[in-house]
Formats: sequence, C-alpha cells, structure tokens
Amino acid sequence: MGKSTVQLANPPSIEGFACTVGKKEGEGPLASSFDYIGKDPYWGEKNWEAAESAMLKQAFDMALNKAGTAPSDVNYVFAGDLLNQSIGAVFGLRESEIPYYGIFGACSTMAQGLALAAMSIDGGFADTVAAAASSHFCTAERQFRFPLEYGGQRTPAAQWTVTGAGAALLKSQGEGPYITHITTGIMVDYGIVDASNMGAAMAPAAYDTLSTHFADTGFQPSDYDLTVTGDLGAIGQSVVLDFFKQDGLDLSSNYNDCGLMIYAREQKDINAGGSGCGCSAAVLCGHILPAIKAGRWKRVLFAGTGALMSATSSQQGNSIPGICHAVTISAVK
Amino acid sequence: MGKSTVQLANPPSIEGFACTVGKKEGEGPLASSFDYIGKDPYWGEKNWEAAESAMLKQAFDMALNKAGTAPSDVNYVFAGDLLNQSIGAVFGLRESEIPYYGIFGACSTMAQGLALAAMSIDGGFADTVAAAASSHFCTAERQFRFPLEYGGQRTPAAQWTVTGAGAALLKSQGEGPYITHITTGIMVDYGIVDASNMGAAMAPAAYDTLSTHFADTGFQPSDYDLTVTGDLGAIGQSVVLDFFKQDGLDLSSNYNDCGLMIYAREQKDINAGGSGCGCSAAVLCGHILPAIKAGRWKRVLFAGTGALMSATSSQQGNSIPGICHAVTISAVK
Repeated sequence: MGKSTVQLANPPSIEGFACTVGKKEGEGPLASSFDYIGKDPYWGEKNWEAAESAMLKQAFDMALNKAGTAPSDVNYVFAGDLLNQSIGAVFGLRESEIPYYGIFGACSTMAQGLALAAMSIDGGFADTVAAAASSHFCTAERQFRFPLEYGGQRTPAAQWTVTGAGAALLKSQGEGPYITHITTGIMVDYGIVDASNMGAAMAPAAYDTLSTHFADTGFQPSDYDLTVTGDLGAIGQSVVLDFFKQDGLDLSSNYNDCGLMIYAREQKDINAGGSGCGCSAAVLCGHILPAIKAGRWKRVLFAGTGALMSATSSQQGNSIPGICHAVTISAVK
Repeated sequence: MGKSTVQLANPPSIEGFACTVGKKEGEGPLASSFDYIGKDPYWGEKNWEAAESAMLKQAFDMALNKAGTAPSDVNYVFAGDLLNQSIGAVFGLRESEIPYYGIFGACSTMAQGLALAAMSIDGGFADTVAAAASSHFCTAERQFRFPLEYGGQRTPAAQWTVTGAGAALLKSQGEGPYITHITTGIMVDYGIVDASNMGAAMAPAAYDTLSTHFADTGFQPSDYDLTVTGDLGAIGQSVVLDFFKQDGLDLSSNYNDCGLMIYAREQKDINAGGSGCGCSAAVLCGHILPAIKAGRWKRVLFAGTGALMSATSSQQGNSIPGICHAVTISAVK
C-alpha cells in the first residue's frame, strides 16, 4: 500500500457529524446544509476566542447527540484550530472529561483528526473517538493579520477565514460512511512567502499527497465521485489541476475545493475563497457526509490542506510549508 | 484496562533517542547525560525561533542515526512545541519528507508523541515512527511573557523554560526499552489563573492521570522504579504528593519531576524549576531512557504534563486547563 497510505482492516463508521457556521457562511451556497447558522459573531460570549470555543463545543455536542452517544462513552477526542496554543479546541472541550489529544495541522486539522481517530479505532485502542476543528474570521484576522478596526485591504489572492466548526464521531461498528484509507502528507515547501497567498503555498502539498494516494492505492481519480481539497481556494485549485494535467491526468470533472464550495464567488471580500480549519470541517460535516449518507456519492477523497506558518515565521521571512492529509470516505466498507 | 488506558499487544521498542540542550541546562545536574550542549542561544541561526528548529532537527537526526535509520524509512513523525502554530517542529522537520502529524499538548507534547507513535505501530499502521518536542527559553519568554530586554522580574512560582529538544524513534521490533501502556489524560481545570504558577495548574491533571493509570492497570506506585512527571516543578510536585497522601498513598520514595531534575535549585532564576516541551523531552532522552537501557531501572511511568493556555486566553481572564499523558516504559515487554 506504499509508505504513506494505510488501508483500514475494519473501517470505522462515522456515526455522528455536525457543523455550525457564521452569518457569511450561512449566506453562501451551502446554507441549507449547516446544522446551525449563528448571526452573532460573539456567539453570546465575551470575546471572539470564547465564541470560537462555543462554536466548536456546539458542533461537538450536536455530533454526539446525533450518534446518541454520551461524552463519557467517548474514548478520545482529537481536536485543534488555528489559534495560538489551540485555545479554540482547549476551551471548547475543557469540561468534556474526554481523553484529549491536541493536534495542529492548520487548515488540514479536520482531516488529521479523522485520520488519527480512525487509526485509534482500527488499531484496537478505542471504540468511539471524536474529531473536531474550528476557525473564526475575527480571531484569525487579529492573530495573523491586522486588527479588524484597521480595515486593511485584502489582496486578490487572500482567502476569507471561515467562521465555523465541525465535529465527527467515529465508532468501530455502524452504518457508515466509513473511513477506508488514509494517506498522511509530508511537508512541501515551494518557497512561497506571501501569507496572503496560502492557496499557492498549499497546492504543491495537495498535489503530492493526492498523487501519492493514487499511486499507493491504485485508485484512479474516476474511482471517486469527488476528490475535495480543503481549502486551496481558486489559485491553489488551479495549481493542482495544472500539476495533474502535466501528468496527463484531467482531474477537473470530479474535483472541488472546500474553499470554493462554501462561498459564492460574488460574496463580498471572499477573493480567492474560504480557508480556516472550520472551512473543510463544516463542508465535510454539513455537505459531504450527508451526501454520502444519502447515497448521492459512493466514495469521496477528503484531502485537508494546511499552511504551516505563524505571524512570527512570516515576519522572519520564512516561506510557508504546506501539508495535506487525505482520507477516503466510502458508503461501503 | 479502563476507559483511559491501553495495554499494547506488541510493545514497540524505542530504538533511538537523543537530546540537545542549552548552556544553562548543560550546567545542571544532568549535564553529562545530554548528547549535545549548545553554548550559543542562536544555535548559529538568525533568530531564536530558527535556533529552536535547529535544536529539534539536531536531536531528531541524532536519534535516527543512533538507530541506524534513514529518514526515508520513517513512516510518521509526531512532533510539536510551544510556539504559535508549532513552528519549532514545522521548520525543524520541513525538509525531512516524512509524513508529519503536528501535535500540541504544551509541555506534555513528548508524552503525547510517544503515545501516538506507539499506537500507530502497535495498531499495525507503521513499523518506524518518531516523536519529537522542543522548547527554547528565549522564544517562550518573548511569546508568552515579556521581551527579554525588559528584564522582567520572575515570581517565586515561575518556572524556567528549558532550552532543549528530544527525539525518540520507535520500531515494531527491537531490544527495548518498550512502551507497554498508555494512559491518555483529560483536561482538568481547578481555576488557577496565574500564568506564573503553571505547576499548580497542571498538578490536578497529573494526579488525575496517575491515579487513573494505577486504577486502570492495577500497578502500584512501587511497581515503578520511577514515576516521573514533566514538568510540575516544586509547587506542582508538592500538590501531587499531597493529593496522593490524602488517598493514603506515599509516592515520595520513587517519584520525581523533570522540572526538578534538570536544574540544581541553586542555579540562578530557576525558581520553582524547569518547564517547556524540551524539559521532559530532554530528561527522557538524556537521562531516563539511558538508565532503563543500562538496566538501572526496570520500569518507569513517564507522565508528561501540559498547561493549555495562551497569552490571549490568560489576558482574557481564563483559568489554565492542565493535561497529563502517561506512558509506561519498560526494559521488558
């Protein structure tokens, strides 16, 4: 199966999933997909960071409820976000009393969480494991870019950080969708230094992981109803399509990107598309998993993409390593 | 085995381990244990963050060399640090081309990495997996506290962030030491808001995980040659001892803390002891693993402890959730 891909002997079932998003996401093309659309960016809390934690907790609680599972029956939770020291996940899950593994894969966090959750179950260490991720436009802007009050202009390549959270609950047995394969990504850095062009920074990693996945598994892109990256946006997506075209592979008919799916291009200030851990998490839990469950898609390759940079690393002139973890989600084992 | 503890069916062997530390750590009681003691806080790099990455890479490369393993033979690496978006690990391992899972457990990161690495091998997903963690006094001070140039006074409860990194390479087969049990911690928050007293914030989590471990496994503290937390410092350690005393258990004879082991109490400005992901990572790889390998200890309970806070969460008045992950390391399977 190749060094980077594993096939799960007993594919875990995603038994519960839920997402919650903000107002702007609730005005986009997937509006009807989301479990909850918040109108208040503060989520009734004192500050945006607390709002992000509340969102994550809300999605998490809904996912458990849908699966009819109490927190005390969850063996592990893998969770993370974009905030320094992952305080979105930490304060969202602080009271859960569930054994907690903090993860950081930038915007690939949800895919990483699914991968590790699935491995912990298939490996025989757990029966019930959750994965969750979140992002919030306001917390991300003030941490990575400018104070919102500054009203900074955004470049055309910039992506809009999704206000949203998603959570999935995996069990060893169930009706599916199932996680059948995992391709773990390496860091790939093509020297992009523009922190307003993260799609270009992540695209080579997405290409690397996807092509590794196809080589390792023998799957063709056409074996998937959808290959979905999350979240490269318009520029990154076009780079990935170009790379595959050079390999003689036309991915365009069944390839999409969570950053392009969550907003309409005419929505204000979206520029190159959506981003943030909450982007792929919400698109997965609100749109992709329900479509598989409903029988509309049989097999989807969910490829979370992350830009592994910080404000400090960019200020110090470093380029931006990208990463991509891909998870095969299938209606059948 | 209880909800939070797993026993590994085929305990992975720690085949290579190495650590690198700074000048102050090299003047402490474990000086002779470390593989490399750097005199230059910049590690020959342009800034402290790059120095931290260089340290982590150095420890990582040494661990692989000792195990006679090429990077291309490593299936996964689990790594992290204290820096925003984990740039210590990211830039240290960027060129490794090893499938990378970023983790964040604050100062418990090394224990978390060992746990996940061991599970990925025992679960049958990998043969060779690395775990690594780092911290640097100068990067931590300027990120979490004050600019060093400010010369801020440190409270008696404060701990000194270790400049150091550790890395371990696990394989499915080998001579040991072996990882035999893993107890994954929940977040525990007793309402400590003083970011200069992280030992007190982490101690309840350490107590929770250790007592869960003893209950789940049936091990007594006396079954271990050493139970070692990392890194509670003097205050946190005394809290843990008090908690166990209330349970009628005297842990004092074979219990220690990495934060107390790495420095001599008379070293300047150490105050309550050492801390940082690099503290337990360096004590593990420089002192504990060699002692097991040499036959001096048969079984050690390595319990990494983390304070899950950020500068933002503390400024916003949040208390500090603690976490502790415990890993049994044994000379025999």
